[in-house]
Amino acid sequence: MNYSFSNRISAVKPSAIREILKLSADPTMIAFSAGNPSADSFPKEEIDGYADEILKKTPVTALQYGVTEGYEPLREALKHRCETIYGSFRAGADELIVTSGAQQVFDLLTKSTCNEGDTIIAEGPVFVGALSSFKSYGTVINQVEINDDGMDLDELELAVKRAKNPRFIYCIPNFQNPTGLTMPLKKRIGVLEIAKKYNILVLEDNAYGDIRFKGEHLPTIKSMDDEGRVVYAGSMSKLLAPGLRVGFVSAAPEIIAKLVVAKQGSDVHTPMMNQMICHAFLTRSDIPGHIERINTIYREKSELMLGELDSKVKEMFSYTRPEGGLFIWCTLPDSLDMMEFCKRCIEKKVAVVPGNAFYADDAAKRQSFRINFSSPSDGDILKGVEIMAQVAAGMPRA
Amino acid sequence: MNYSFSNRISAVKPSAIREILKLSADPTMIAFSAGNPSADSFPKEEIDGYADEILKKTPVTALQYGVTEGYEPLREALKHRCETIYGSFRAGADELIVTSGAQQVFDLLTKSTCNEGDTIIAEGPVFVGALSSFKSYGTVINQVEINDDGMDLDELELAVKRAKNPRFIYCIPNFQNPTGLTMPLKKRIGVLEIAKKYNILVLEDNAYGDIRFKGEHLPTIKSMDDEGRVVYAGSMSKLLAPGLRVGFVSAAPEIIAKLVVAKQGSDVHTPMMNQMICHAFLTRSDIPGHIERINTIYREKSELMLGELDSKVKEMFSYTRPEGGLFIWCTLPDSLDMMEFCKRCIEKKVAVVPGNAFYADDAAKRQSFRINFSSPSDGDILKGVEIMAQVAAGMPRA
Repeated sequence: MNYSFSNRISAVKPSAIREILKLSADPTMIAFSAGNPSADSFPKEEIDGYADEILKKTPVTALQYGVTEGYEPLREALKHRCETIYGSFRAGADELIVTSGAQQVFDLLTKSTCNEGDTIIAEGPVFVGALSSFKSYGTVINQVEINDDGMDLDELELAVKRAKNPRFIYCIPNFQNPTGLTMPLKKRIGVLEIAKKYNILVLEDNAYGDIRFKGEHLPTIKSMDDEGRVVYAGSMSKLLAPGLRVGFVSAAPEIIAKLVVAKQGSDVHTPMMNQMICHAFLTRSDIPGHIERINTIYREKSELMLGELDSKVKEMFSYTRPEGGLFIWCTLPDSLDMMEFCKRCIEKKVAVVPGNAFYADDAAKRQSFRINFSSPSDGDILKGVEIMAQVAAGMPRA
Repeated sequence: MNYSFSNRISAVKPSAIREILKLSADPTMIAFSAGNPSADSFPKEEIDGYADEILKKTPVTALQYGVTEGYEPLREALKHRCETIYGSFRAGADELIVTSGAQQVFDLLTKSTCNEGDTIIAEGPVFVGALSSFKSYGTVINQVEINDDGMDLDELELAVKRAKNPRFIYCIPNFQNPTGLTMPLKKRIGVLEIAKKYNILVLEDNAYGDIRFKGEHLPTIKSMDDEGRVVYAGSMSKLLAPGLRVGFVSAAPEIIAKLVVAKQGSDVHTPMMNQMICHAFLTRSDIPGHIERINTIYREKSELMLGELDSKVKEMFSYTRPEGGLFIWCTLPDSLDMMEFCKRCIEKKVAVVPGNAFYADDAAKRQSFRINFSSPSDGDILKGVEIMAQVAAGMPRA
């Protein structure tokens, strides 16, 4: 038969970029394109121990249906963590639920707050998974360019002002995906002020917040929110392990109530055993010690990659110097064709992500690309940067 | 601040019925309102053994990000099961993906195929979770009444014919939720013929198919589908354990491609460890023996409840006699007020689900209610039916 699909899903097109990314599944490829945390960061034995204990002592709780809001002890542990660590803010009784990864927060919030044709204001570039969620509800996405200093607040205000039914500002203040940049305090304050002025929400995505391996933590935007305007998306993916698919959202009770309704129809609840493992980890493991351990991995890997970039490509293109997270954002001079560069890297078995992937309008010409330092081995980092340098040196100039 | 929400989520209203259901969280309540499989059915030691082995032998696969389509060995095991057990049908390479419970199939399919205002034709009454998913995308739901013989095909055809942009027919052919009824073979053929005639899809929900404790298995509608018209939703929730949140969908490659795009933006992928446990279970456990064991539990519990109903309420109201699944559907005579009956049962500490919960229009007067025999203890079944009998006997007649 011939199929017809909804307008909203037809808006999420498989792009040329996805085709390039498919090539990175090749096991001989050096995958600088990855978005994975380091496998060395997983506390494997601890997780195994907790899982075994949970399935021996409380198997029925772990295996039976649970409530949509999440496993109550995990909600409490996450609230405690928000209060003492994340920046810090206090989530009330009905102000935090567990989600199936932070990804689900983007989906549920868009579903709950945006009609088709409404506008979401986002950083540009920004996490492609969030853009997919936004698009899949028929929203319009306006992106405001970021640089070392975050978004330009005048441009942000203009974007909100000009938007048709703006609903929220989406940003990743810490070690942004894809740029690795951190939003300065004054910009965090500014984003919240603009949201207030135009009476819209802020979706603060702090998926990478735990992985600060340099510098000092900055307050979350949520911590400055005194009127329930900020929706805060958190994740266990980088702190513990992404395959468990456990995230959370903290927001005003009115918003949480709608997210619960949306989640019920979406997947009923996040798997119980996974939630219980996260709970055991947060309440029984040495979290500061664990964070110190994983950040040492990330610090060393980022320093290795930055050192290689400094010695081999510094003269040819620019790149960010992240204080945390998983990514470095590289920008070619205008004289070099970025898509051609990415294609040549792939031919030489180094996969990077072309910058247009991180824009709703992925057809526009961009000069940047994303590389990841958390997944590749040290040897692959050395080899991969060397290949990038060779490719850049051999590129035709416009 | 004052919040405003999307039209689609505002269409999913918390109903008076939900308020009644909340009361069943009371631990002193006999929860005939439950939709849970029996906790005795979970193969706890096997799951513990598999989880432990997976986390010891292949921890990185279990804890790292996976692909949206699902863990490949599990997809293969599910295809094998579809081919040999479920009815039976053959799913090709791109015709089956893993989902976060069967619930996610309702969400992803509606998102991918329905614009706001499009119509879904469903059995009436039908699973409330599916109705919530459908509503949350702003669809119109037309329900066709079912009885012992399934839907009336003339009425079904009329409903499709009259609908504005009908997109699919939703049905649960085996041990339907909430009625426990099974759709006869001729009706399965008839549903598919009507879908063909009007060029729409069929969403076949076989969440309960494994739990046949009486009679002979009937072919799935999917097994009669030679043109990719049937979208088949399956689940590990009743066969293994619902807390794992693992389901699957089999459909034509064109549809699967859209569901993958939708799932990527929804939760990226279903948790890896959970998928790996399901894979180990399907490929290494004695599945026929397990099914025999759990169906013995369900057979005994359903016989106990039906026996009690026969001896205590037969003269006062009617009820279905399911050959599988978890539910019995009871119908009061017109002289008794169903909502008043449910309220009085709750006062006496027996929770049942008022029939209007299973209709998109939940304000219309109904005479039926749903009871569950899989969760309550044998003692609670005896006690609960006795209380229902007392309440019915004490009701004022209209």
